[in-house]
Amino acid sequence: MRHIIDLSDLTDKEFNDLYKLTTNIIDRPEGYVDACRGKVLGSLFYEPSTRTNLSFSTAMMRLGGSVVGFSDPRSSSTTKGETLKDTINMVSCYADMIVMRNPREGAAKAASLYSSVPVINAGDGGHLHPTQTLADMVTILRMRGSADDMKIGLCGDLKYGRTVHSLLHFLERFHNVQVYLIAPDALKLPDYMISFLKEHNMPYCEVNSIDEVLPELDVLYMTRIQRERFTSAQEYENLEGSYQLTAEKMKRAKKDMLVLHPLPRVDEIAQDVDDDPRAVYFRQARFGMFGRMALLLTLSKLPFERAGHQDIGHEPGVRCSNHKCITRTELYVPLHGKIGDRCPYCDKLLELDI
Amino acid sequence: MRHIIDLSDLTDKEFNDLYKLTTNIIDRPEGYVDACRGKVLGSLFYEPSTRTNLSFSTAMMRLGGSVVGFSDPRSSSTTKGETLKDTINMVSCYADMIVMRNPREGAAKAASLYSSVPVINAGDGGHLHPTQTLADMVTILRMRGSADDMKIGLCGDLKYGRTVHSLLHFLERFHNVQVYLIAPDALKLPDYMISFLKEHNMPYCEVNSIDEVLPELDVLYMTRIQRERFTSAQEYENLEGSYQLTAEKMKRAKKDMLVLHPLPRVDEIAQDVDDDPRAVYFRQARFGMFGRMALLLTLSKLPFERAGHQDIGHEPGVRCSNHKCITRTELYVPLHGKIGDRCPYCDKLLELDI
Amino acid sequence: MRHIIDLSDLTDKEFNDLYKLTTNIIDRPEGYVDACRGKVLGSLFYEPSTRTNLSFSTAMMRLGGSVVGFSDPRSSSTTKGETLKDTINMVSCYADMIVMRNPREGAAKAASLYSSVPVINAGDGGHLHPTQTLADMVTILRMRGSADDMKIGLCGDLKYGRTVHSLLHFLERFHNVQVYLIAPDALKLPDYMISFLKEHNMPYCEVNSIDEVLPELDVLYMTRIQRERFTSAQEYENLEGSYQLTAEKMKRAKKDMLVLHPLPRVDEIAQDVDDDPRAVYFRQARFGMFGRMALLLTLSKLPFERAGHQDIGHEPGVRCSNHKCITRTELYVPLHGKIGDRCPYCDKLLELDI
Repeated sequence: MRHIIDLSDLTDKEFNDLYKLTTNIIDRPEGYVDACRGKVLGSLFYEPSTRTNLSFSTAMMRLGGSVVGFSDPRSSSTTKGETLKDTINMVSCYADMIVMRNPREGAAKAASLYSSVPVINAGDGGHLHPTQTLADMVTILRMRGSADDMKIGLCGDLKYGRTVHSLLHFLERFHNVQVYLIAPDALKLPDYMISFLKEHNMPYCEVNSIDEVLPELDVLYMTRIQRERFTSAQEYENLEGSYQLTAEKMKRAKKDMLVLHPLPRVDEIAQDVDDDPRAVYFRQARFGMFGRMALLLTLSKLPFERAGHQDIGHEPGVRCSNHKCITRTELYVPLHGKIGDRCPYCDKLLELDI
Repeated sequence: MRHIIDLSDLTDKEFNDLYKLTTNIIDRPEGYVDACRGKVLGSLFYEPSTRTNLSFSTAMMRLGGSVVGFSDPRSSSTTKGETLKDTINMVSCYADMIVMRNPREGAAKAASLYSSVPVINAGDGGHLHPTQTLADMVTILRMRGSADDMKIGLCGDLKYGRTVHSLLHFLERFHNVQVYLIAPDALKLPDYMISFLKEHNMPYCEVNSIDEVLPELDVLYMTRIQRERFTSAQEYENLEGSYQLTAEKMKRAKKDMLVLHPLPRVDEIAQDVDDDPRAVYFRQARFGMFGRMALLLTLSKLPFERAGHQDIGHEPGVRCSNHKCITRTELYVPLHGKIGDRCPYCDKLLELDI
Repeated sequence: MRHIIDLSDLTDKEFNDLYKLTTNIIDRPEGYVDACRGKVLGSLFYEPSTRTNLSFSTAMMRLGGSVVGFSDPRSSSTTKGETLKDTINMVSCYADMIVMRNPREGAAKAASLYSSVPVINAGDGGHLHPTQTLADMVTILRMRGSADDMKIGLCGDLKYGRTVHSLLHFLERFHNVQVYLIAPDALKLPDYMISFLKEHNMPYCEVNSIDEVLPELDVLYMTRIQRERFTSAQEYENLEGSYQLTAEKMKRAKKDMLVLHPLPRVDEIAQDVDDDPRAVYFRQARFGMFGRMALLLTLSKLPFERAGHQDIGHEPGVRCSNHKCITRTELYVPLHGKIGDRCPYCDKLLELDI
């Protein structure tokens, strides 16, 4: 473990060690109040994200460490024409670890090239958000004991929801995970993710409402459906009831089913569900904080060696096809490969640069 | 003590213990540098308030604790459609205590329903600001020894000034407090506060200038008069001199009179008063910080049990008449009562919801 | 040492002690993790400056201290009509030291009149920025062993660049410093700075491109040239090459030449220079943090006595000629002197106040 760009980069052993440390911290938090004493976390939020920001800051402070950085690029001078490379170079002179949220896809990977300290991805556009997946996994493992032999329903926006994609990627390493995809036609899981499920022999079925499958589920992972995804308000309202969870519906669910949600929720989970003991989405936020404590502590103890990077700029004739990719704005970032290869930063396809 | 919504909720014993702890901290601050070590304060400022924010943050840090949160809702994602309930639920997963400033009246009380940790009200609109009253009381008690047998002048905007109302509410529990109300006709103390003084046998008189009563006073509590309260600039300027304190006027005051001000001041206290040893308004800010230290320390040590709350929504046909009340925007907050009852959040009257 | 307004105010002994402490911290940082424990730094940034802000905050935290304040006046209520005097009075009630960045020239000096704790200038408009000079000096002394017998090139905007002026002021106290001024005609070192060099017998020469002098230099101090300084884009582009450093040009420089830059850089140093071991501008940022640690630690240990200040307002008939001077907005700040004297805050000339 050097940088944490994608949770799936962790080996089974690395993840198991991380989870074990997380449970130790949950069970005996007072044993860790000085674990990162004297260490400083650089927290760079290029777009506001109170939830993730608070979670990381609290995690570092509960380890006895400190946090510097910015929570809003408007109050930062780093956006005034300075390259990401220079900002990262500077902050890694001050801090012992860096956590970064950035709207450009692939930004965390690019940042890691220039950092002399470990970089943790706290969300790079719609690409990856590894510590959300960590929060999900800690919740499932802690509350169920295991992620094996699990029927999991994923409900809401499965097309754009990166938390769902990351979770499915990670669940591949467990045994007998059955997947129920609960989404309107316009927001179904993309073909490449369906291919992923097939390749890894993960049984799945697609349905059009929570009601159809609710009694079967061990875990129900809810996500927000954004009104803007639909062409008319009417279309949205017609669908809404099928993807909303209510106390009434919960009566038909298993007694030990878990309801997860990455938060913030709007009205896809009705207020009257909150007091149901199976509704664990706020505890999930707390588990996320403990997972982040384990991650920060692990990285702070490992020897770190800078990647070093003397290579500058893009290979002629090639560019990433994703206009939100970090390589489209930071032109010095090295980019090699053939047309049709995956971009090493955002995983989209490389194309002809005309 | 669970939540601190209104300082008047404290019993005499609770307040005396709090004041005693405050004086211990003032006299021996070095004994408390680790008192909240490992604890995290969630600091949620939904409107900027540098003064209160700095005071609470410093207080927590001087106890060895840490602070997370936001000082400006613009750099926060919690305002993007998330309910207060969900934000509080989330933050109380991370933090050991919450301090909140919110422009909606009754917001702190509403927040306390959903928090699994103690909530401290740092100002809810024009409603309550208990730790300002705490700062006032610590200053008076520390500098005078007692709040009994005291002639206190309250000068400026007595109509809208919530600090004045809160202070009067609290002074009711002391003996022989005589109140001089020094305000222009347009900004006189409201009728319900006059009734309060009568009910509690607090002698008072109303006057139209500082000069009339200055030599009598043991304490002069100054407040800001906002220009906008007057229909014309001329009207304001005519009055200004009567409610402005100057070094010249101070010559007629008692040698041990105390001048207090909640700050920030504009020109109701002339710059030339600042170097007078009786001008204690900056020391008052410092006493406020020590009072907040005592409050945070006390809350961090008490056992806390979540109120729990399964009740959702408003009783049909009833709403709060105050359009700034938290119940007017957060519709899931439970609201019960008859028309004409006091709102349990902002203390205004309930009315027919048409 | 009481306040740090200008680095040149330090005696040789004070500076040597400060540098010695800096090197001790660099060599054994773990010995200082509790050096400022229980202390609070008030950090007041009236304009965004991520770099300086992060550097000071990290410095304080690495000493075990805490930081409160604001990084953006928009999220601060102190700008709402409150005087600088009152803000400083308030913050010095909470904090043990104050660091301030302010766009008004002379603001740090003015603030120091009202503070009961040490004030450190983190930049007052285009006037002074002493801890940048400290970062520069620590880098030179640490990497070269000495600032004596040094040929230093200063390149870029020598007219408006305050870091260059401050550095030259400070270098006056070393022996045999030869100065090469590398700037376009429009951005040459001002006459009063040339006079300074002559007065202090510092040999200098003015040239029009890096290439002319590069092989001679022991230190090359690069600064940014702002496009807006030129009347046409064409004029800028014609000049650009002469004041840009590239890997190609570096081949002609001494093997142990140091390249410094106050950062942020734009394109005056090409990306391909970054991996050259002589490019020490990011390490310079790190040395700056260590220098700030030494400064904070020194100030936190010294006995401090408030200056006290009973004097109010400007002498009739006189004002500062600099419309960016703090005395032009904060009218209570004492200002004495004759027309033609230097302003005690911003060092510009006093003029007739009509």
